[in-house]
Amino acid sequence: MDEVRLLAVEPLTREAFAPYGEVIEPAATKGTHGINAGTAERFHALARIDVVGPDGHAAISQVRAQPRAFPFLVSMLERHPLGSQAFVPLDPAIRYLVVVAHDPGATPRAFLAEHGQGVNYHRGTWHHPLIALDRVSDFLIVDRVGAGENCEEAALPRQWRIEI
Amino acid sequence: MDEVRLLAVEPLTREAFAPYGEVIEPAATKGTHGINAGTAERFHALARIDVVGPDGHAAISQVRAQPRAFPFLVSMLERHPLGSQAFVPLDPAIRYLVVVAHDPGATPRAFLAEHGQGVNYHRGTWHHPLIALDRVSDFLIVDRVGAGENCEEAALPRQWRIEI
Repeated sequence: MDEVRLLAVEPLTREAFAPYGEVIEPAATKGTHGINAGTAERFHALARIDVVGPDGHAAISQVRAQPRAFPFLVSMLERHPLGSQAFVPLDPAIRYLVVVAHDPGATPRAFLAEHGQGVNYHRGTWHHPLIALDRVSDFLIVDRVGAGENCEEAALPRQWRIEI
Repeated sequence: MDEVRLLAVEPLTREAFAPYGEVIEPAATKGTHGINAGTAERFHALARIDVVGPDGHAAISQVRAQPRAFPFLVSMLERHPLGSQAFVPLDPAIRYLVVVAHDPGATPRAFLAEHGQGVNYHRGTWHHPLIALDRVSDFLIVDRVGAGENCEEAALPRQWRIEI
């Protein structure tokens, strides 16, 4: 295997993440509007839920993740060919890393999600499993459940080291 | 209009809420399992996303709700015939009220959601718009977006007062 390379951590922004999915955060989109007689503001359709294939449907789950040890080595990625997958932290103090790539042979990108930012991976986007920081962290998941082969894993041709 | 009646507030439990929808919270369901090489526990398929009709799909939105004044009067309910609708607080300190009824003429039930509990109204369930307590509160919403008439409102034959 080739030498381990350092992977820089970028801020998570809607623009930078757009090739891989959506950032879920309050944002002044054209769909933002008042609801409930003006007592609330809705940030509308921040992410699209996209599930395909028979014998499956979209559902809401939760995950409780242990913090990872650092430096962290990225040596594999996974993707879900039958559906998008969203992770949203259930406490604004939660920080986590988001690692994505166009394909397992490409240089991945690492983003730091903070201030309550969630992500929705487009269907089929290569990404690393959840990398929690700091503490035990609860997330909401919105993805496809049901029958069908919806998880592919790939070992990377080289490892990437993340320091934070 | 008939006299205003007091509506008691009940604790929100999966069992009590089952006729109206699902409570979204970590729970030892049969689908709970370790993932990501044992670094996380997934509470699987806590709520089903159910959208119907052409020209619409499920999406993730957010809402920022102002706290309501109390005593609060319940005088209307709404329902979404084309899809389920989930609200999940984005901070475990958020408390809110959930008011539901089998139909607009029936006695409603009021539940206090706390400790991070979310709810998913079944498609077509009569419910009151979000009733935030204490402070400005952010929630994730998972519901149907797109064309089609997906909101019915009904004035109630009598008002109900909630004190908290």
